[in-house]
This record gives sequence, C-alpha cells and structure tokens, in this order.
Amino acid sequence: MRIVAALGGNALLKRGEPMTAKAQHTNVRIAAAALADLARDHQIIVAHGNGPQVGLMALHAATFAPDNPWPLDVLGAETEGMIGYLIEQELMNVLPLGTDCATLLTRVEVNRMDPAFDQPTKPIGPVYSAEQGKQVRAERHWSMVAEAAGGLRRVVPSPVPVAIINIGPIRLLVDSGVCVICAGGGGIPVVRGSDGKMEGVEAVIDKDRTAALLATALKADILLMLTDVEAVFRDWGTPTQVPIGPITPESLDAMDFAAGSMGPKITAACNFVRAGGQMAGIGRVQDARDIVERRAGTQVCMDQSYKKPITGRPKPGISAKNQPEAIQGFA
Amino acid sequence: MRIVAALGGNALLKRGEPMTAKAQHTNVRIAAAALADLARDHQIIVAHGNGPQVGLMALHAATFAPDNPWPLDVLGAETEGMIGYLIEQELMNVLPLGTDCATLLTRVEVNRMDPAFDQPTKPIGPVYSAEQGKQVRAERHWSMVAEAAGGLRRVVPSPVPVAIINIGPIRLLVDSGVCVICAGGGGIPVVRGSDGKMEGVEAVIDKDRTAALLATALKADILLMLTDVEAVFRDWGTPTQVPIGPITPESLDAMDFAAGSMGPKITAACNFVRAGGQMAGIGRVQDARDIVERRAGTQVCMDQSYKKPITGRPKPGISAKNQPEAIQGFA
Repeated sequence: MRIVAALGGNALLKRGEPMTAKAQHTNVRIAAAALADLARDHQIIVAHGNGPQVGLMALHAATFAPDNPWPLDVLGAETEGMIGYLIEQELMNVLPLGTDCATLLTRVEVNRMDPAFDQPTKPIGPVYSAEQGKQVRAERHWSMVAEAAGGLRRVVPSPVPVAIINIGPIRLLVDSGVCVICAGGGGIPVVRGSDGKMEGVEAVIDKDRTAALLATALKADILLMLTDVEAVFRDWGTPTQVPIGPITPESLDAMDFAAGSMGPKITAACNFVRAGGQMAGIGRVQDARDIVERRAGTQVCMDQSYKKPITGRPKPGISAKNQPEAIQGFA
Repeated sequence: MRIVAALGGNALLKRGEPMTAKAQHTNVRIAAAALADLARDHQIIVAHGNGPQVGLMALHAATFAPDNPWPLDVLGAETEGMIGYLIEQELMNVLPLGTDCATLLTRVEVNRMDPAFDQPTKPIGPVYSAEQGKQVRAERHWSMVAEAAGGLRRVVPSPVPVAIINIGPIRLLVDSGVCVICAGGGGIPVVRGSDGKMEGVEAVIDKDRTAALLATALKADILLMLTDVEAVFRDWGTPTQVPIGPITPESLDAMDFAAGSMGPKITAACNFVRAGGQMAGIGRVQDARDIVERRAGTQVCMDQSYKKPITGRPKPGISAKNQPEAIQGFA
C-alpha cells in the first residue's frame, strides 16, 4: 500500500522538552525506526510538522535582529531544510541499503483572502509563563493565546492549503520508488499575485491538512497522522474520556470536539477518506504499524466493511453502531 | 547543453550589505533573471553557496542559546531550505509557465580523516572589526582569520566532497526535464561511521567543488561558477592585474594564485574539465549567458580548438599561447 505518514512537530520535539539539536535528533531516530518498519511492507511518503521549530527560529531571528524580522515563509523553508535533513538521514540509516531517499522543499499555494489571515490560530514556538508571554506580546507585537495546560503561546495565521506547487516532481519520484520526504511544516505558504507570480506570506499551514492534500494527489491508500497522543478521544480532558477506534466521517461530524490540536487532524482525515482514501489513522509514532493494521489509534474510513475486529487493547470509546461488522483487511 | 550553474553566497548577499531577508530577495531575483535567460536555450541545474547565511544562522543560534549551539550540518540544512526556496520561487516566476522545478536537500559525504578538520579555512558569516572579532573569538571559541579587505571573519573546516548521497533522485529529475536546485552550500556534510550509518559533521563544504562533482556525475557540458567578480585575475590586487579569458588547466597550474576565494573555483574548474566537461566558466551572475557564449568571464577548457574568438571586450590577460586558434563553438 501507499502510505503518507505525517509526523507531528510534537513527535519530533516533545512538549516541555528543551529545544536542543540533540533532543530533536533522538526523537527523529525513534520516528525513523517506526517508519522504516512500515516501509518494509509498504511504500511510504513522509511529511512533518514544524510548530515548535519555526517558532524557535522566529525567536532566534527576532532576538538577534528585532528590526529586521525574517518572514514566516522563509523561516518555514528553513525548517523544511533542518527537519527534512534529520528525518532523511535517520531514515536512510535504517532503510535497506540502496534505498533512494529525496527530501523536497514544497511550496503550497494558499488564498490571499483566506479569513485565517485575520484570525491567527496556529500555535508555534515555546510556551511562555503568563508574565513572560505578556512581555513577549508587548515587545514583538505577536498574537498570543492561553495554552490548555497553562502559559501563553504565539499564534499565527493558518490558511487552508489549496495546491501543492511541486506535486509534479514529487509524483515522479514516488512513482519511481524513491522514498520522498516533503510538505514539511505544511509546506511553504505562497500566494499568487495578480500578475501570476507567486510570493511568500506570513503564515504556517497546518501540516495535516497539507498531508491530506498530498495523500489525495498521490492516490495514497492510507494517511497516517502520527503524534504523541494515542488516539482521538471522546470527552477529552473529562473523567469519562475514551479513545476512539474505527469511525466514519459522518460519526465524527456528529461529535463535538473542543477546539485544539485534534481539530485539523479530524478535518484532514475526513477530507482524505471522502476524497477516496481507504483509511486515515491518528495515533502515536511508535504505533504506526499497529494503526495501519488497525490495532491502535483512531481509524477513519468511509466503509464499515473495511473494519477488522480490534485485536489489540479494547476500544471502550466505540459505540455499537461503529463496531466492526465483518472481518476484512485492506487488499 | 546541460549546464550546472553554481551561485556564490556573495552573489546572493553582497559583500558589505546588511543581511536582511529583503536584500537577499532582491539579489536572488537578479540571479533568477540571468538563469532564466540561460534556461531558454539550455537545461540548467542550480547549485548555490551559503557562506554569509550559514554564519548568520550560527550567530543567531549562538546568541540565543550559547550553551546549546546548533551544529553546522543542521545549520547548513537550514540554509538549503531558505536559499533554495528563494531561488526556486524567483526562478519559477520567470521560467515559462508549466516548467517543473524541484529543490532537493543534498547530503554530501566527506572523509572523517580529511586534514581540513584540523585546519579551518572556509570563511562564514559577517566580517567583524578587529576589536569585535577578538571578542567573538574569546566568547565563542571560534577560529577567526583576517580578511584581505580588513576585519576578522570566522573560519570553519571545509573538507573535500567525496560523494553526493542523493545523486540518484537528482539524476532522475534532471533526466525527466525538471529544473533542479540542489547541493546548496556545498551540500550537508556527513561522514560514514564504522557501522555504515551516516552522521553530520561540523564543516561547510566548498560549494564550487561540490558543484564540479555534481556536474561530472550528471555529465553536464558546462559548469558555471557565478559570483560578483568578472573573472579570475592574473596578479590580482596589483597594478598589473588582468582578467583571464579562455585558459587550460595546464596553464592555470603554472600560475601562482594567492590563497583566497578564487582558489576553490580554479580547483573545481580544473577537476570538471579534466573529468570530461567541455568548459568551466567563472564570472559575474549577470554575465551568465556571455560566459557560456565565451564573451565574458574566465573559461577553462582542455581543448584549444573549442575556443571561439572573443567578440566582446578585449581580454588583456590572455597570453598569445592561450589565444583562440580556431572558430568553433560548442555543438
């Protein structure tokens, strides 16, 4: 099967972990092992987030030259270089000798009139204490929001990805059997001017929405969104919270999810399977194979008949309506 | 013809110019126009330097987190993202509609035992005053050297590139007619461990030497090294200095060049034509077409018979021995 695996920025740099090159390296190595395991049986294309990293780079640049801040499109491109390199290196170190790998910068078109530009929602960079956060807001004129776990974090516009500019070369490599890493950080956000020329914009695209677009364009069978949480939860943060296993987009539509990091993942999953994808999985990096084999994570698919019985731990969050009805794996 | 064009870091961020995103953008646009002009008649592959930029990023990171400096391989990867993006965007904005472009991260293997690791020679980042430079050396424990034009600059090891890890996917795209941007900053320097696994090293590879390796691997006809100087000069910096036009590697071997930025370019040019390349040109970005058509710059080639008469400004630096003998252009 062809699988697009999107690694969360938080799977690469854990929440609360100091943002050092070494910490990131260690986490990338864990992710690479999980992806290489999948790659033994499937063709994988790797996308990744950049939330913590792009925020850190913005901070570096702003600390050093407050009067000449580097724009978010350029910083996003830097993170595609940095994170893409680390993933490629660690992945090639564990893939069979002779596997070709290519990491492509990926420009993604967004709409200049996207309402997201007036309403920043994407958190990037470190979490500040309330006091630090207020100081940063005053100094840098950045939009800040309160984090669920406490503290303040910078937020930036996150417009909807419309088209992957570099899809031609990506498809060419994928169809030739090259292991491709692309669409890092949701892609470098660009808009088309009235003269037809593209230019960068101050935004960070959600990497899961771009990964869904990529997976659809490449006719992938599965879209995997890998993070540091085991699944989508019903009633998250309450005493009755339960992880969701197999589920349809219709059932997800009927549920009420608090705004947060799962929102874009659910949208991306529904977009992908509604556009013809077999399954979109959400779960932990180290569970990648188990999610594909439907033993872990949340598995979004259109057709109930695709569901295999859950052979792993019980999924108490699944209503009778959504329980598997037939034993049938993916072809 | 197939042409590998290597853009100098100084052609992207001019000497003495403040290192802002805007300045870099303007210079990239000038380079893109020159390259697009070439691309009308030839297939181009674009490489680029990163000296000023990788030094700036090292400074950003060190200023912000002096105890956790990011290593030069990771910073080099960041510059491949940043500069590659700007080049790709500006180039695609001026190439004919429908041209596919791909920017690939490029890991380049170097030898762990390369003597360059004990003798840093590659200048990166800003030029400091003597006083500032001494302070930086004391604070950061960086190697610094005096610049010819005055001031001090950081120097880092610059080992010889041995192999381009990602040459397979690069060749696949080039052979399919995609305009490829790669080998930025001379490539991300990696070494092979005793277990066969690759890891990054603290170095910045010379981009011209990597471009020569790339041009040879892709069987390019021409290697262009584009900078902010019109040609290689004989007796540079003296009252008798003269630009060199067409010349053979043998003649270059017999000359004495002061160590400096032209050294690696001359080595790269000789390596390329000795490995079978038709011509290696050195000159200004805006003269790209004139260098290819042998009206400007220094043109290194093996075979005297390839030389066309110089139709542009006279090249007073050419000895009688090296004057063109036959009217014959490239096929």
